[in-house]
Amino acid sequence: MKAKAESGKREQASVATQPAAPAVILVRPQLGENIGFAARAMANFGLTDLRLVAPRDGWPNDKAHVAAAGAAFLVDQARVYQSVELAIGELNFVLAATARPRELVKTVLSPESAARELRERGVRAERTGVLFGPERSGLDNDTIALADAIITAPVNPDFASLSLPQAVLLFGYEWLKGESASPPLGRVTGFDGPVTEGIAFPGTRPATRAELFGLFEHLEAKLDQAGFLYPAQKRPSMVRNIRNMFHRMGASEQDIRTWRGIIASLARARQGRGGKVS
Amino acid sequence: MKAKAESGKREQASVATQPAAPAVILVRPQLGENIGFAARAMANFGLTDLRLVAPRDGWPNDKAHVAAAGAAFLVDQARVYQSVELAIGELNFVLAATARPRELVKTVLSPESAARELRERGVRAERTGVLFGPERSGLDNDTIALADAIITAPVNPDFASLSLPQAVLLFGYEWLKGESASPPLGRVTGFDGPVTEGIAFPGTRPATRAELFGLFEHLEAKLDQAGFLYPAQKRPSMVRNIRNMFHRMGASEQDIRTWRGIIASLARARQGRGGKVS
Repeated sequence: MKAKAESGKREQASVATQPAAPAVILVRPQLGENIGFAARAMANFGLTDLRLVAPRDGWPNDKAHVAAAGAAFLVDQARVYQSVELAIGELNFVLAATARPRELVKTVLSPESAARELRERGVRAERTGVLFGPERSGLDNDTIALADAIITAPVNPDFASLSLPQAVLLFGYEWLKGESASPPLGRVTGFDGPVTEGIAFPGTRPATRAELFGLFEHLEAKLDQAGFLYPAQKRPSMVRNIRNMFHRMGASEQDIRTWRGIIASLARARQGRGGKVS
Repeated sequence: MKAKAESGKREQASVATQPAAPAVILVRPQLGENIGFAARAMANFGLTDLRLVAPRDGWPNDKAHVAAAGAAFLVDQARVYQSVELAIGELNFVLAATARPRELVKTVLSPESAARELRERGVRAERTGVLFGPERSGLDNDTIALADAIITAPVNPDFASLSLPQAVLLFGYEWLKGESASPPLGRVTGFDGPVTEGIAFPGTRPATRAELFGLFEHLEAKLDQAGFLYPAQKRPSMVRNIRNMFHRMGASEQDIRTWRGIIASLARARQGRGGKVS
């Protein structure tokens, strides 16, 4: 019963701390391909609310649908508006992505800080969104003035122009990164669980120290037979260095068996070629 | 003299802590466009060492040159190799970017941790690089086995496939982010200095409290004349709320002048329409 109650509490906490994802609002986008690529970048990072303000080539747009590939459903669901004011009408907090803040008095946030701010506001049930400008010119000052703050990414100042889909990608990446302290990495399928940072041992496990010590004894015995650990006064440091290499390797149980096979096979070859040395 | 010596020390420290940027190694890339987009993403984040292993459509490739736009110089400088082994021959530490670690025992790093590791190794004068696989299949296991560790990005597990240039972009973004605790944001030109986080006041400065108090007195006097701050027992809380709105605004000196103009102009209009009320 206690376990069940706690699990219920955990679920509730999880719902409470997973806020609605921000809307991505593309203002007067020019190329259909870029709308599709932006949708794909959104899907990569769990963003689903795509809004378009006056797309240049009309709507729907086949090129957007094709470029989105597996994220075409986001393109199909996109809502189209005649003006920025209509597109952000029901939102409580709006950011504007731009390469530099122009002549406006405005708070500047990095993508990372922006994601944190949007997440905190989402937790408080605020509706949020991010404005991205047309490819050629970016957002104009009248549109930026409608936002609460500006997002600007750290870039090489000598080569600062991000494409529209790249800007959406960086924002989405920081949004997903902020979801938990150690978000799952990469692809997850029915065949493998989520991956986190650190060393992975698929289909095997880290070796135990006893397995390593067994390997060392095996190896050192064969090396003694071969006369490798010579002269005697150097033996302790040679053994220490060899053992240290194996410890650094972070060996798996399977690795230990592989090494024992290698040692046995090399020792047999030696014996085949002429029996014991020394 | 002291200042000069310190400045010299700072320069030295800066050289010592700005390690060589990692090489970006595209393994059997298929589309010239993607090579160009990857070069562009490299330039966005200060990466310059592009290496290609057996590009499918041969080399040089016009489509790569065109897609790179302003970063075409990186495409022109790219070195081409027949094998991964040759491409990474002189490197000390190599990472492999892949959506999931397959059946290899290998350390997994997020792009952020990978950037930190590469930076630390670069500071110790190690040469480093990151392998990115062909568009369709990604890196094969034989190539991944050549790397010291794997980079995998946090993505939506249901839609995990990043395009080749997007993968390069995310890595480059984390590389540049790691350069300092507060990297400059966005475009920097001869006309404006670097932008950092926080509120920007281009061409103006934050208002002083004295300027705000002057505005409050002006506004409240006009509102008293207009009978707005009524009844008397509500006046203190009304004044407090109005003052609080202005403080929240983070007003600039220019904003104060604008508001004084607005107040004066509205008050004149009232007088014009019928003189003082109350």
